[in-house]
Amino acid sequence: MLIAAAVSYIYGEPDFHSLLLSFGITLGVALLFYFSKKEEHQQYLKKREGYLIVALIWIVFSVFGSLPFFMSGYIPRYTDAFFETMSGFTTTGATILNDVEILPHGLLFWRSIIQWLGGMGIIVLFLAILPVFGIGGMQLYVAEFPGPIKDKLRPRVAQTAKFLWGIYTILTLIEAILLTIGGMSFFDAVCHSFTTVATGGYSTKNASIAYWNSPFIEYTVIFFMMIAGINYAIIYAALKGNFKKLYQNEELKFYLLFGFGFSLITVIGLLFTQNLGAEASIRTGTFQVFSLMTGTGYSTANYMNWIPFLWSFMFFIMIIGGCAGSAAGGLKTVRVALLLKNSYHEFKRLLHPNAVIPVKFNQRVVPAQIITNVLAFVVLYALIAIVSILIFTLLGIGFIESIGTVVSCLSNVGPGLGSVGPMDNYSLFPDAAKWYASFLMLIGRLEIFTVLFVLMPSFWKR
Amino acid sequence: MLIAAAVSYIYGEPDFHSLLLSFGITLGVALLFYFSKKEEHQQYLKKREGYLIVALIWIVFSVFGSLPFFMSGYIPRYTDAFFETMSGFTTTGATILNDVEILPHGLLFWRSIIQWLGGMGIIVLFLAILPVFGIGGMQLYVAEFPGPIKDKLRPRVAQTAKFLWGIYTILTLIEAILLTIGGMSFFDAVCHSFTTVATGGYSTKNASIAYWNSPFIEYTVIFFMMIAGINYAIIYAALKGNFKKLYQNEELKFYLLFGFGFSLITVIGLLFTQNLGAEASIRTGTFQVFSLMTGTGYSTANYMNWIPFLWSFMFFIMIIGGCAGSAAGGLKTVRVALLLKNSYHEFKRLLHPNAVIPVKFNQRVVPAQIITNVLAFVVLYALIAIVSILIFTLLGIGFIESIGTVVSCLSNVGPGLGSVGPMDNYSLFPDAAKWYASFLMLIGRLEIFTVLFVLMPSFWKR
Repeated sequence: MLIAAAVSYIYGEPDFHSLLLSFGITLGVALLFYFSKKEEHQQYLKKREGYLIVALIWIVFSVFGSLPFFMSGYIPRYTDAFFETMSGFTTTGATILNDVEILPHGLLFWRSIIQWLGGMGIIVLFLAILPVFGIGGMQLYVAEFPGPIKDKLRPRVAQTAKFLWGIYTILTLIEAILLTIGGMSFFDAVCHSFTTVATGGYSTKNASIAYWNSPFIEYTVIFFMMIAGINYAIIYAALKGNFKKLYQNEELKFYLLFGFGFSLITVIGLLFTQNLGAEASIRTGTFQVFSLMTGTGYSTANYMNWIPFLWSFMFFIMIIGGCAGSAAGGLKTVRVALLLKNSYHEFKRLLHPNAVIPVKFNQRVVPAQIITNVLAFVVLYALIAIVSILIFTLLGIGFIESIGTVVSCLSNVGPGLGSVGPMDNYSLFPDAAKWYASFLMLIGRLEIFTVLFVLMPSFWKR
Repeated sequence: MLIAAAVSYIYGEPDFHSLLLSFGITLGVALLFYFSKKEEHQQYLKKREGYLIVALIWIVFSVFGSLPFFMSGYIPRYTDAFFETMSGFTTTGATILNDVEILPHGLLFWRSIIQWLGGMGIIVLFLAILPVFGIGGMQLYVAEFPGPIKDKLRPRVAQTAKFLWGIYTILTLIEAILLTIGGMSFFDAVCHSFTTVATGGYSTKNASIAYWNSPFIEYTVIFFMMIAGINYAIIYAALKGNFKKLYQNEELKFYLLFGFGFSLITVIGLLFTQNLGAEASIRTGTFQVFSLMTGTGYSTANYMNWIPFLWSFMFFIMIIGGCAGSAAGGLKTVRVALLLKNSYHEFKRLLHPNAVIPVKFNQRVVPAQIITNVLAFVVLYALIAIVSILIFTLLGIGFIESIGTVVSCLSNVGPGLGSVGPMDNYSLFPDAAKWYASFLMLIGRLEIFTVLFVLMPSFWKR
């Protein structure tokens, strides 16, 4: 907030005071808690506490993070301010703003930086800069970091977190430079590189990336969205010259296969139905596919104007998500790949019911427990989706909009279907629907189990 | 066909000759195959052959079963005749007929009896009356009879099948008598009892059960739809006075809980939004819920005219289905119950990752393999649904219609959403969409694995 306040000060805009005041309130409350803390609660962090802290931190951050929007009067209703902030921290990118461009630079910057922070995970930041959590840190890391299989980059969590943030910052810098070269102002370039590497999707323009109408910018963004959806352990290995790990990683292969395969289908569809020309079809198709698959949610075209097959296709792409261990949302590539492999294996098991036919991934046998966990995760995702669609229809949202919103929020994408498509926003949703959507974003960002777990009665039993 | 021809002869209607000719063609082809059969192929029936025979029989039956509709000229296009027949045998009940009431009695009777035959399963009929399959019969039974857990009624398959058909016939007779008392003509009563106990849903009237506008008929149909969705092993036990088995059966509890729980929600919804009055709301709500949950597909109201929450709710109810071992479609209650239990257990496993926390059903521990199989089944159902929705949109069907058709066909319900809702039909679908829908009905009726299995290259490898 202090950095955003500084940005506001430089531009001499009216949001300076509300940013500074929000910073003051946040710091004040933090100090209040800091001095009232009890020593014995600090030392031993158990699994249970880990889950609770992770779930609470995201809520607390959104409560305080929404203060600048609310107090400056640019988002006059608190429900809207909270929605916008939760959408930011969870890297969803869904907005209630009809006109983003009227926001002053400080607030635009704050809106981008919350996505950047949320992308790598607030907790990982904590681990990197605050060693206070000590031994309990691993529990937080397990509860928050996406993906069913934990790739241990380095033995110590704090060091891992520092490396992740290092790569993340370097990628952000490179993209910002490239976008400036492509014709963006330095301010817009920084904001967009924040929200690209975080797979967030907030833009400083109403028309999103389409505003610049620049193939160079679009290809740059496609490249960095693609990178942002890759497991950081793999990026780290590649940066260290360990290309063997790159080639051997099966999730990466599936990720690129899905990304480029779906792009090919979309491009063919666009060539037959839209009058864009070959290059623009390739660019537009690939852009929306990687934007929706990684859960970024930028737009260079309004897919709701495409034929139903193409926008239905875009909708289902949202579910898949990027690699585990990336900032991307969705089910994650590794889960989808394991599902496909396991489905195929079920047929083999039909023919040889007594044979042990294990599913392999990365040349290793996947334990049955992990397969069951992945299946249970997907089924839980579907159950929550169904109940949530019904809740939205009950709140007065249409069927197509309900389906789109649920998948978009659970997968942390941003744009939905119908009247909440890529060129529209969520401003017309009733308050209850906005709060429920915020809840879904949080569930999605923390991969379902963490949030629901904390809400279950058995969690609180001793 | 011969019985239908007899019905036609009694009424002295023009479909008599086409029914008799269809019977002749079917018999001729059957005799041709019978006399050309090779002895060595008859004795040993292996798993592989079992799956192939089951899948083929349903296709062959639909090919020949469609002849009366096609040759009589009442369904002049073969695609339509095949769709109508496959929809019949699979007990889906989706129709392409704009006006059912112009059909002569013979064809109406044939249309009802194919649902009755399909409801209990053509193969079970085979086992009951043709002992020629001998040892291989169990393979066919396993490949065709619904449900993940096989309840062995009696050690010998042929005897089991005879008992099933016995109960089935008795239920049909009782319902036919009650419907006649309620004011239906004897002909309509027989046709409707055929299609109720089969959870089929074909009616002799365009307005379906709503035609009679009789609460007595509607409550009778509700009761028999509810019975038709129960596992026949349980009905058999209850008829023999073994009520202990009835009380202990957990699937039945879930089935009734779902049925009456969903009815309650629907009734409350109707009371608030439709001006029907209390009794009619209870009757209408319960009717649609059991009709859609069991996959019968009769209508006494057009749910597409209800608020989006209520028709979305009706849509999701279609997915659930009745008990395993019944004629009902959908995922089956036992699978949904196991999914819910397993999801809850996943949370317990989070807290105690090293503890063995098994899922229990019917007071017994469910083997991990069955849980995995159920999860894989549901995920496969979802995968097929997603790909199929995309295929329908590609064929020019709208998004809502595509979603509705896929779930309705896979769950063998009948009515879909939007323009293929309960008071509409599938006549406007392009041919390719009709063939693909027929394929989905077959996949749904044989519980996905059987049909897809036969289509896989590895099935044909030696």
